[in-house]
Amino acid sequence: MTDQGSPVDGARVLKDLNALRAIGAYKSGVHRPTFSDAHMRSLNWLLDQLPAAHLVADIDGIGNIVGTSTKAGPKLLAGSHLESQNYAGWLDGPLGVVYALEAARVINLDPTIDGAVEIAAWCDEEGHFGQFLGSRSYIGAISEADVDAACDRTSDRTMRQALESVGLASRTRVTAERGRHIGYLEAHIEQGDWLESCDLKIGIVTSIVGIWQYRINFVGAQNHAGTTRMAIRKDAGLALVKFCVAIDEAFPRICGPRTVWTTGRIALDPGAPSIIPGRAEMLFQMRDDDAAIIDRLERALQSMAAEVTAKGPCSVTVECLRTGAPAIMDERFLDAIEMASARFADGKSVRMPSGAGHDAQILARIMPAGMLFVPSIGGISHHWTENTDDADIVTGAEVFVEACRRLLAR
Amino acid sequence: MTDQGSPVDGARVLKDLNALRAIGAYKSGVHRPTFSDAHMRSLNWLLDQLPAAHLVADIDGIGNIVGTSTKAGPKLLAGSHLESQNYAGWLDGPLGVVYALEAARVINLDPTIDGAVEIAAWCDEEGHFGQFLGSRSYIGAISEADVDAACDRTSDRTMRQALESVGLASRTRVTAERGRHIGYLEAHIEQGDWLESCDLKIGIVTSIVGIWQYRINFVGAQNHAGTTRMAIRKDAGLALVKFCVAIDEAFPRICGPRTVWTTGRIALDPGAPSIIPGRAEMLFQMRDDDAAIIDRLERALQSMAAEVTAKGPCSVTVECLRTGAPAIMDERFLDAIEMASARFADGKSVRMPSGAGHDAQILARIMPAGMLFVPSIGGISHHWTENTDDADIVTGAEVFVEACRRLLAR
Repeated sequence: MTDQGSPVDGARVLKDLNALRAIGAYKSGVHRPTFSDAHMRSLNWLLDQLPAAHLVADIDGIGNIVGTSTKAGPKLLAGSHLESQNYAGWLDGPLGVVYALEAARVINLDPTIDGAVEIAAWCDEEGHFGQFLGSRSYIGAISEADVDAACDRTSDRTMRQALESVGLASRTRVTAERGRHIGYLEAHIEQGDWLESCDLKIGIVTSIVGIWQYRINFVGAQNHAGTTRMAIRKDAGLALVKFCVAIDEAFPRICGPRTVWTTGRIALDPGAPSIIPGRAEMLFQMRDDDAAIIDRLERALQSMAAEVTAKGPCSVTVECLRTGAPAIMDERFLDAIEMASARFADGKSVRMPSGAGHDAQILARIMPAGMLFVPSIGGISHHWTENTDDADIVTGAEVFVEACRRLLAR
Repeated sequence: MTDQGSPVDGARVLKDLNALRAIGAYKSGVHRPTFSDAHMRSLNWLLDQLPAAHLVADIDGIGNIVGTSTKAGPKLLAGSHLESQNYAGWLDGPLGVVYALEAARVINLDPTIDGAVEIAAWCDEEGHFGQFLGSRSYIGAISEADVDAACDRTSDRTMRQALESVGLASRTRVTAERGRHIGYLEAHIEQGDWLESCDLKIGIVTSIVGIWQYRINFVGAQNHAGTTRMAIRKDAGLALVKFCVAIDEAFPRICGPRTVWTTGRIALDPGAPSIIPGRAEMLFQMRDDDAAIIDRLERALQSMAAEVTAKGPCSVTVECLRTGAPAIMDERFLDAIEMASARFADGKSVRMPSGAGHDAQILARIMPAGMLFVPSIGGISHHWTENTDDADIVTGAEVFVEACRRLLAR
């Protein structure tokens, strides 16, 4: 591909990604939770690469790295994250950071290009301590009280304690200099099977879907599983499974073409084999890039709950935990990625929404933003078997760097 | 009632039950888990009552109390248990122990009655450490290795550690002297609403249902809840809820008149809101006093699982964890309770199976056994609001003591 004119060094990109894979390696993936030793070593690895891209940075007070350039001309911000989900894949995050690094190495050292790529590694995109704390800190959307409140989702360790233990507690948090950047570009693995199943190489993200989350509560009557006749039971667990099946039957008729919904957790109370559950709850999530569709589904959910409650014997309430807002990507960014794909990916690109959340949705609040996807083998994500073909990784890097060049050359 | 000729002291029975309620009191119920301080105090309370019933005993090496009499003539064993479920009712267990105590006080001190009532408080009927460990120890059905293996279901504390901490570790376990007893009689609250709803005062237990328990496993494919299209998901949680609903639809057509079935616990793996569950499992229990009916239901369960697996996208396996065997109560005991009810409960009795497990099912393995139930208000059980009307408690005691008298007088 580089023979066709890309200045990208594909071997260097793969070498960098494999260097990161070796930090906190787990089988063919990585285990690099936020502020783990492996995560800190990956951040230091990135700091070591910055001089070669003519960038300067340090890790800031929330674990972000934002490298800055003194080169004249417009600045494009590009990046992703380096921490991982537990025992997860090697590319989820690092791909976007290494593409940004490669773009900076190519563009910042090229005196014929006006402007520079500045790169970012946002801390905790994977949400070990919260929701996009790193990128939200950079855009000025979190307070010191928010940092105080952040806590490891699987332990009692607070973010303050974690920052202290890795030596970042006394550092300030770097926030965006308004007007500095023409926008933000992020690359990521697709995490789905759409590109692969259509034999496409580049996904041009049109929007990042909103996530709406609910706790659905069922209340019946706890009783003895041996002595309570079936006819008089108020089994909250049975009400819950019926409700799940009713959603599965009703939603396909009223959802949008790309709506997804998931029941990720179910708990019966008290959860003993000989006790009829008196209470039950499920965590339910819906995603779409069209809030009007979610409105319709949420109304359906509420009316189904009211119907079940009216009919008995259990009552159901739907509690909204999190309201989504789709983030719309910038049209100029979409065009730049599309033209870059035409040149370096045989035009095998498609415009598509992102079903997953990304830091780009946070940056989009303060600057134009865009994202591109590369294919995920088998659509596998958040698992150590996640992977992308080496050739697709290199193609993605070529498209990414070309898109950066085009955006700076406007 | 005592005016009609019962030698039972109803006020004494209620006073004893309330004395036990005060030990480990929780709201209007008790919290007296096995080997808790409250449980040990309740056992010592019982030891203090034995001389007045002309009985001798100590707490044995597994926490049982079996009081013995030196009175001539046949011996009837009677009792129940003193520990409770967590934050549960005041009568579940103590009712049977206090009835036995009252019977012993009345009969053992009466020189005109040939024989004696010997009383038992079986340890851990509520299963904090295992399945009927106390009564199974008494009939010789558990080994030292079984005691070694027993562990608190909600902590890592072993039964050995618990026995050590309450000072019972060095004591021997008392086992039954074969041929000593003409049988075993136990009274208990019904734990259901059958007696109350029919305005009856005494349930004459014909059999104790068997409990069959299963783990039903669902395997799909774990994936990202945002990026994985609905059409290609292999959601193990969805397969589980559909299976539960299918059971609920199929079983009423093929079950017996008193079969009960319960899904007491559901777990989705990994149980995160943004991850499609790749695995799921449910604990499923069935109870009946007719093993042939359970056979039929289990076959239905297996064929439903095979059908779902064949159809896809998830596979289902049904794993049997526990096989039940109904315990049949002795006909002579049924007759004795029925005649006693005719005299002291206006004949307001009914023959019925027990949907709950009781120590009587263990004792029935080595001697004739019988049980009687008194009504539970609202059928509530395993909850601190469990209760029985004082008048019903006294009527039950009168029927119980009369049944003991009749059994000894055969």
